[in-house]
Amino acid sequence: MKVDLEAALERFLPRRGVPPALAAALRYTLFNAGKRFRPVLVLETCAALGGDLRQALPAACAVEYIHTYSLIHDDLPSMDDDALRRGKPSSHVKFGEAMAVLAGDALQAAAFGALARTPDGRLVPALLDALAEGSGAAGMCGGQALDLARRASLEEIHLKKTAALIACATRMGAIAAKSKRVKELTAYGRAVGLAFQAVDDILDAHERGRKNFAVLHGVEAARRYARRQVESARRAVAFLGKRGRRLMDIAESALARDK
Amino acid sequence: MKVDLEAALERFLPRRGVPPALAAALRYTLFNAGKRFRPVLVLETCAALGGDLRQALPAACAVEYIHTYSLIHDDLPSMDDDALRRGKPSSHVKFGEAMAVLAGDALQAAAFGALARTPDGRLVPALLDALAEGSGAAGMCGGQALDLARRASLEEIHLKKTAALIACATRMGAIAAKSKRVKELTAYGRAVGLAFQAVDDILDAHERGRKNFAVLHGVEAARRYARRQVESARRAVAFLGKRGRRLMDIAESALARDK
Repeated sequence: MKVDLEAALERFLPRRGVPPALAAALRYTLFNAGKRFRPVLVLETCAALGGDLRQALPAACAVEYIHTYSLIHDDLPSMDDDALRRGKPSSHVKFGEAMAVLAGDALQAAAFGALARTPDGRLVPALLDALAEGSGAAGMCGGQALDLARRASLEEIHLKKTAALIACATRMGAIAAKSKRVKELTAYGRAVGLAFQAVDDILDAHERGRKNFAVLHGVEAARRYARRQVESARRAVAFLGKRGRRLMDIAESALARDK
Repeated sequence: MKVDLEAALERFLPRRGVPPALAAALRYTLFNAGKRFRPVLVLETCAALGGDLRQALPAACAVEYIHTYSLIHDDLPSMDDDALRRGKPSSHVKFGEAMAVLAGDALQAAAFGALARTPDGRLVPALLDALAEGSGAAGMCGGQALDLARRASLEEIHLKKTAALIACATRMGAIAAKSKRVKELTAYGRAVGLAFQAVDDILDAHERGRKNFAVLHGVEAARRYARRQVESARRAVAFLGKRGRRLMDIAESALARDK
């Protein structure tokens, strides 16, 4: 990878005129040892398609800002009420609930603002459309709303809550590469996202009482399901041949991970 | 006005794949008798500059979605803890706190998504940059963070909390009109926003115990301040001559309003 993702995550944040307390709250969760799974997918997708990584870098940062804001809001007392995030106090524990709401809100604005920094401005409308759809009412936020109501199937919840943003990452990577294979890469991302969530459920199954895929259907069934999704992801990018090797590896890594 | 703002506010919302409970929560606050001050400013600015209103309509809806999400999040128990909004139960009272957080988050995504529907895609990067700045960490969210900490001057809080989004409305109107006078119209919007907030403070002074401009400096001083801002707004758009009449009227209306 020829771009510096961590430096870009800092660079695309708004700087001038940001109150220090808010700036601190934004960065606290953003730079807390995240694995950068989604932004790496944006960049690797763009690379596999032979695109210019500089066109993908703002979108890579954008998807990580969105993911981070969703973690901050998910941890709120009125949502999952998690006091810890990656072994440290969650945002609302550290900064208070009001500041955590604002930090999440500001990170979402920063995500969309980052897209405006894409060097080729002609890519911006399609990137913007992808990010708004993947993160909004029909995507990630919609998945969380389904999760609250518990009226939908688990697969439908996972599709929106987790897979929509991961599919958005690969979709944006393909858009940034000016590829005609946006659909295929979106399908790849969706399958990787479903595998990712199924493995999350297996890891979570013994930790919490919550109903999830592994609890409902058993750990073996969840593993088989995740494996099928990874196969589906591999088929979606088979057309890439050798150039798709990193994407194949990333799909496999969704299976073989710990928390 | 040749465009139908209310219809557009419905049309630019995401539709397919939105869980019904979330769709209901979004619309509840969005279609609750708002005065549409900000979107009207986008459209009137574009009209005064001789622009095509169809290029301004998505931005007009976007700024109203942002304003609406900020009301929903402001009313949360951890923020202002307001149980009523325009005489009806606030979003979190009606739908629960978690759904209110999600409705606000999804409306913010819808705001940015609406910009992608601007007919002339070349306008999108500048519109996106304006909306992200006006609503984000250096704008509206930053103002709310300052308000929490109470470490800044009231004018600094007002500049960010209220004036930044109103200035963003007129800035986007000027961008949509492809005008070279973006700075002047932004200055106009900022002054109108400061007048607007000073009048809000006068109206609020007797209702709540909170410190605000009118409580700190007296109602007469607040009126003089608001009047000065309106004069400053008029000067900023004086170059428009007769074409600026509606903008002059809107600036005046910021003074002579009730809640």
